Amino acid sequence: MQPRIVEVRQGILKKNDLLAHDLRRRFADSGVFVVSLVSSPGTGKTAFLEATLTALKNDYRVAALVGDLATDRDAQRLGRSGVPVQQIVTGTVCHLDAEMVDRALAGWDLAALDFLFVENVGNLVCPASYDLGEALRVVLLSVTEGEDKPLKYPTIFNAADLAVITKMDLADAVGFDRAEAHRNIREICPRIEIVETSARTGEGMAAWLERLAALARRTPAAV
Amino acid sequence: MQPRIVEVRQGILKKNDLLAHDLRRRFADSGVFVVSLVSSPGTGKTAFLEATLTALKNDYRVAALVGDLATDRDAQRLGRSGVPVQQIVTGTVCHLDAEMVDRALAGWDLAALDFLFVENVGNLVCPASYDLGEALRVVLLSVTEGEDKPLKYPTIFNAADLAVITKMDLADAVGFDRAEAHRNIREICPRIEIVETSARTGEGMAAWLERLAALARRTPAAV
Repeated sequence: MQPRIVEVRQGILKKNDLLAHDLRRRFADSGVFVVSLVSSPGTGKTAFLEATLTALKNDYRVAALVGDLATDRDAQRLGRSGVPVQQIVTGTVCHLDAEMVDRALAGWDLAALDFLFVENVGNLVCPASYDLGEALRVVLLSVTEGEDKPLKYPTIFNAADLAVITKMDLADAVGFDRAEAHRNIREICPRIEIVETSARTGEGMAAWLERLAALARRTPAAV
Repeated sequence: MQPRIVEVRQGILKKNDLLAHDLRRRFADSGVFVVSLVSSPGTGKTAFLEATLTALKNDYRVAALVGDLATDRDAQRLGRSGVPVQQIVTGTVCHLDAEMVDRALAGWDLAALDFLFVENVGNLVCPASYDLGEALRVVLLSVTEGEDKPLKYPTIFNAADLAVITKMDLADAVGFDRAEAHRNIREICPRIEIVETSARTGEGMAAWLERLAALARRTPAAV
């Protein structure tokens, strides 16, 4: 590639993309597999993450960053799992960006971690545009939100690597149409993997953890 | 107030606020009571609005605007109620603004309406900052989202005039803590009214409609 073209392309990349690119390289160099979680408020990101951290911590070195406009409730809640958790309070900002992640990691020894989870602000729109340097972006959708959400918020589903359907224990109570939900997710993102879980009953968590371990072994080397 | 101070204040008002101010005056002059609805994706704004339109249409002249990033599914769904409904497709924009509302209303005879509902894009963050000229801003929270959401998304709860808790028929199934939800809403917005509803069973809809009719009689004259 010619230097001029490289210059032009770099000019197009926004500040966030550049910083995310650096983060991604640092994560890969350190051997830490970074997973970001995006969803609506109330989909159950924190419950899902708490179950994930609790399950992983015996076999892996894990940590988490959690983003919210206000409060450190999620960090406190996740802290019960006994792993390092850092809250990022965004104020009025509706998403995490690479700089917030970079700042929150100041002083961390990334090489001492196997997995780092980054829970975004609950928002099905804005986080889609901000690369955080993650190796895997997971979008979560709860059975209570309606099967049409992928069609109505296509950007974030399109930008995800894996979809997790949460609160499966409520599927019958809300008349969840599983086939329609899968069809709508795949209409936006045809090859995406879909995992169905319930943090409450533990349903599907083993399948998710197995998939995660498989992806983590493969992806860092490919970055 | 001195002219210079007026100038400075007008300078501070952003374009949206100015346009929203004009809209609010037009709505008041036309005698239409405008209600906006904000919530997360999947809280049940559309189901709530459908039940509201169906209940009101026999006694009032009602219409609705519905915002989404993509698809006209909500307009089609609300159209079943038999009232005029216009979809606003925002593309990648995470909220409605006054200009979108203004554009969607081009050619409408506002004086022929008693109520106009404006359903925002599902997003608990960004819509908070955009005045749409509404007389009443309603924030919705479903029992499935968790009682802590007002604390984690304070701006939008603080900017609302009335809070509606939706999906009350699922309260027992999800272990909804009613007292904590009310306490958290009031911690952010101490004097806000709270109505509990279920679009599915009809619970609380009569109380909501009664409250709405009372507010509509009072507020337009006060603008």
